[in-house]
Amino acid sequence: MITKNEIKLLRSLRTKKNRQEEGLFVVEGQKVLTEIEESGLEVVKVFSMGPLDNKITASWSDISERELREISSLVAPNDVVALVRIPQPPKEYQKLEGLVIALDNVQDPGNLGSILRSADWFGIRTILCSEDTADVYNSKVVQASMGAIGRVNTVYGNLHSRLEELKGGHTIYGASVKGTNVYELSWPKEVVLLIGNEARGLGAQYDSVVTAHISIPGSGGVESLNASVACAVLCSEYRRQQ
Amino acid sequence: MITKNEIKLLRSLRTKKNRQEEGLFVVEGQKVLTEIEESGLEVVKVFSMGPLDNKITASWSDISERELREISSLVAPNDVVALVRIPQPPKEYQKLEGLVIALDNVQDPGNLGSILRSADWFGIRTILCSEDTADVYNSKVVQASMGAIGRVNTVYGNLHSRLEELKGGHTIYGASVKGTNVYELSWPKEVVLLIGNEARGLGAQYDSVVTAHISIPGSGGVESLNASVACAVLCSEYRRQQ
Repeated sequence: MITKNEIKLLRSLRTKKNRQEEGLFVVEGQKVLTEIEESGLEVVKVFSMGPLDNKITASWSDISERELREISSLVAPNDVVALVRIPQPPKEYQKLEGLVIALDNVQDPGNLGSILRSADWFGIRTILCSEDTADVYNSKVVQASMGAIGRVNTVYGNLHSRLEELKGGHTIYGASVKGTNVYELSWPKEVVLLIGNEARGLGAQYDSVVTAHISIPGSGGVESLNASVACAVLCSEYRRQQ
Repeated sequence: MITKNEIKLLRSLRTKKNRQEEGLFVVEGQKVLTEIEESGLEVVKVFSMGPLDNKITASWSDISERELREISSLVAPNDVVALVRIPQPPKEYQKLEGLVIALDNVQDPGNLGSILRSADWFGIRTILCSEDTADVYNSKVVQASMGAIGRVNTVYGNLHSRLEELKGGHTIYGASVKGTNVYELSWPKEVVLLIGNEARGLGAQYDSVVTAHISIPGSGGVESLNASVACAVLCSEYRRQQ
C-alpha cells in the first residue's frame, strides 16, 4: 500500500524545485531501477505492482494499478516507481581527467539522458552543465540515461567561468557545424568537449575560452546532427585515438 | 478556417493504417515543414495560426488556437500543422550504393527519426527497414528527422530475405555489443550496416547473412549505447575512412 503523503511526495518531485528541497528523485521501471541501485545510489523506497526482481534490495510496498497510475509520470506506466536520494556532489568532481563533457543550455531531457548514457559507455566521469541545462534528475533524463546518472558526475554552475579557469590546463573543443574537421584533428589526453544548445548551437561568448571549434563533416541536407548524437560521435573519435 | 472533414482526416492520420490508405501524413511546425517542402515532398495543405513563413508556398488556411489543439498531436502544439503526400517508393531505391543502413525492429520513433537525420547528414541515401520497424510517417519520426524523410529513402519489407539477396555483393556489418572493434576495422565502399531492436539487439537469425559483428569499444557501466547513437558513431567511422 501507499499513503496519501507518499503519493503527494512522489507527484511533487516532478518539479526541479521540489526535487532539490526534498533531496529526492523518482525512478520508474525495474530495469533502470536495478541499474540505479547497482551504481550505488540510495533507493529510499520502491512501490511496485507485483513482486520485485530479487536484485533490488530496498524496502518496497505493493500497490494497485490505480495507485501506480496516480504516481507515474509515464503515459504507459511501468510496474515500478521508486524514490531515490540525490547524492551530495561527490568530492572527486574537481579532479578532471581525460575527456570531460561540457553542456551549454542543452534543453531536451532525452538528449541529456542520452549524453549521460554515452558518457558512461565511453568511460567519461564528469559532465559540466550550465545552470540552464536540463535537470539531471528530471524523470525523462533518468529514463534515457539507463542508470548512468549513478556513475557519471554532473556538476551545474556558471559554465563560462568554469571554462575560463580550465582553459590554462585543458584543451577546449567546441562542437560546431563550422569548424576543424574532427577526422583530421589530434586529440590531447586532457580535453573538454563543449556542446551547445539544440537550436542555437554554441553562443559567441564561448569564443574566448574555446581552443578550437570542431565539426563532423556532413554531406547531406539536414542543418546539423542531433546534439546527443554529435556528442557521442565526438567522444568516439577521442576514444579511438587514445 | 478548417472544415470538420479536414479535422477528422488530420486526426485519423495518427494511425499507420489510415496514413497508408489516404497516402498522406502530418507535419507539425514551420521549421520542419519548410525543410519538408524544400526536400521536394508535396505539401497538400497547411493549417496555420497566424501568417506563414514566406518560404512555404503551399495553400494554407488560418485557424484558431482551439482548432490547432484539435488537430495537433503535440502536448504543446506548434503554430503549424500540414498535410503532406506520402511519395511513391522512388525507383532508385534498388540501386544501393555506398553505405546502406538496415534496421531490424527499431521500435522507438525518436530513434528512427534520429537515424534518418544522421543518415542525411552523412550522405546515406537508403534505409532498409524490417516490416516491424516503426513507421517513418509517424509524427514523432517526422519531427525528429528534421526534414530528412524527404531526402532519405526508407524501404520496408522482409529484411532477412533482402539481406540474403545482398550478401553476395555487399559486406554486411551487424552492430553488436560483442564484435570486432570498429576502430580496427577496414570498411569497404559497399556496405550494409545492420542495427537491431533497442532492447534485444540483433536476433540470431541474422548470423547467416552478417559478414561480421562489429562493436564500439566501451569501458563504462551501461549495457549498450542508444541504437540511434550507435548507428551514427558507426556511420561516422565509415565516413572517416572513405
